[in-house]
Amino acid sequence: MKRPNSVRTQFLSAHDVAEIVAKMGLAQVLRGMADYIEADFLRWSDFDKCARVASHSAGGVIELMPISDAKTYAFKYVNGHPKNTLLGLPTVMAFGVLADVDTGVPHLLSELTLTTALRTAAMSAVAARALARAASRCMALIGNGAQSEFQALAFHHLLGIEELRLFDTDRSATAKLVRNLRHTPLRLIVCQSVAHAVRGSDIVTTVTADKTHATILTPGLIQPGMHINGVGGDCPGKTELHADVLRGASVFVEYEPQTRIEGDLQQMPGDFPVTELWQVLAGRAPGRIAPSQVTLFDSVGFALEDYSALRYMDDAARELGVGRPLSLIPELTQPKDLFSLVRPAFKDLSLAA
Amino acid sequence: MKRPNSVRTQFLSAHDVAEIVAKMGLAQVLRGMADYIEADFLRWSDFDKCARVASHSAGGVIELMPISDAKTYAFKYVNGHPKNTLLGLPTVMAFGVLADVDTGVPHLLSELTLTTALRTAAMSAVAARALARAASRCMALIGNGAQSEFQALAFHHLLGIEELRLFDTDRSATAKLVRNLRHTPLRLIVCQSVAHAVRGSDIVTTVTADKTHATILTPGLIQPGMHINGVGGDCPGKTELHADVLRGASVFVEYEPQTRIEGDLQQMPGDFPVTELWQVLAGRAPGRIAPSQVTLFDSVGFALEDYSALRYMDDAARELGVGRPLSLIPELTQPKDLFSLVRPAFKDLSLAA
Repeated sequence: MKRPNSVRTQFLSAHDVAEIVAKMGLAQVLRGMADYIEADFLRWSDFDKCARVASHSAGGVIELMPISDAKTYAFKYVNGHPKNTLLGLPTVMAFGVLADVDTGVPHLLSELTLTTALRTAAMSAVAARALARAASRCMALIGNGAQSEFQALAFHHLLGIEELRLFDTDRSATAKLVRNLRHTPLRLIVCQSVAHAVRGSDIVTTVTADKTHATILTPGLIQPGMHINGVGGDCPGKTELHADVLRGASVFVEYEPQTRIEGDLQQMPGDFPVTELWQVLAGRAPGRIAPSQVTLFDSVGFALEDYSALRYMDDAARELGVGRPLSLIPELTQPKDLFSLVRPAFKDLSLAA
Repeated sequence: MKRPNSVRTQFLSAHDVAEIVAKMGLAQVLRGMADYIEADFLRWSDFDKCARVASHSAGGVIELMPISDAKTYAFKYVNGHPKNTLLGLPTVMAFGVLADVDTGVPHLLSELTLTTALRTAAMSAVAARALARAASRCMALIGNGAQSEFQALAFHHLLGIEELRLFDTDRSATAKLVRNLRHTPLRLIVCQSVAHAVRGSDIVTTVTADKTHATILTPGLIQPGMHINGVGGDCPGKTELHADVLRGASVFVEYEPQTRIEGDLQQMPGDFPVTELWQVLAGRAPGRIAPSQVTLFDSVGFALEDYSALRYMDDAARELGVGRPLSLIPELTQPKDLFSLVRPAFKDLSLAA
């Protein structure tokens, strides 16, 4: 429902996105977003892709993630500042835009802080549907921060995970997760260590925030058949997995050029073999080929997922009548007469001069 | 006046920026913005610079222009679609953000459509103050579209230009410019050709929009001592000047790596000599050294100018009490409890499930 010849921008705040989730139901939003992501990954070659543009500082990173197909351009602004929580601020904050390729009009500006958590969880579930054993019922969840409940529920609703084994170095984060999910059918087991959490799990999700070379998972913890959903090794200098965990697994990535720089893959030689997930989804490369195989989704978050998520929220917002216009671009009677915006001011000035 | 531990984003619409111009006066805004640009160019090495990230399509380009110093990160979204005016849409539309490097909080979201025209004109004037002959009084203005009045007034107020010689292939654009500036002290001379406009001018400003290799200025038109302010050769495949015009001039640029790709400079060999303008402003390289020298500012627009412009508008808006908060980033009681935003929805869902 594009408004032709209009510069109008629709705005969605985090409360608007929360309202969409309230109206659609969280399970439905996660499923819908997973469907949008999968559909867009299946037309991988339609997209003009590039690694994100990152500005690193001592305390964190600010990134711009653009992507485009022939019709729609999208970008996301996102930060990652692990120490923000000490200031009462979120570690990750984001917003993004959908624009029309033919005219450049930015027709949607949306919050993406909440939406990023939803899309990251949906992406993890899309990968796990292709890579984890079908009978997976138990997941270790290492890192119980802002994204953890979304991961938990995406795996519950989209993969049938019934049991969560929780660990975080911050016990209050785990307690918060338990409070948030206590009314769900999920069995929540608070663990005393990473090893304790991983033991007996079919899937291991790591979603920690420290900007450091951590080795949260070591080879001794990994059992045959596990699927590892590595979410938190996502920028240069920030890894979660011991290199031997990667060596012992079949490694799948979103967009190889970006993951080589940012993912846990950054530890490995440039020729370490990986498979882009879209190839598995499209049936062009094998995913899991044996029950004993260890699969690893080295997820760093790719612009295409935000494109899909923005598209999903745009459609849902229109369907539900959520959001409002924002005067981001001036409406001009004559497009070459930008000066009309300041003409009254200028007249005053010339009289005064 | 940063709000610590707050995720609040202040929003400035085009009408807010127009209100700032109305209250401050256009001459004052142009002078202030030129001062901010000059001050930021003088601390060139403080900035983490990169060429902009451009997404090209048949009809135009969409670009992201990030830049950062140790304290403040800025980026601009901007398009360039020359055929937009046929649809009643502006050729160039833009918005941008200032964010805190230490936390990633985007504390200002502002329109930049109007602001870009102001900053481009201020930038041109900063360059011309350093490069044009001090006695310059007459300027040819080739291209009388959305940016032209701003160029005209910046050169009037900041350089003392008294006479404008106007040409555009679209006569209605020139008529619009004349209407807009008829109450000013500027003498406006409507010319029948580029050659007619250039004749006798001290400064030649080219600000055309076609995405093509045009040769608006040819060597035969250029007189000794002229300063050429080339604004419209600003993306790959878009040039305005004959290569021999560059060969006959001392060429100055904003940020060399970007101008080599985007400017009129794209026509020249990689070792064609240019000087970055900040070096002239800082006294580290000569600008104009002789009255007969032809100087050329091959301006493509650099992220630092938007950083300066956003900073100026942010300060002016605070001083004047213009703008309003926008809920771009959710406020969370507990930063790790992002899920709190959807908890009510989720409860409903679990009851329904």
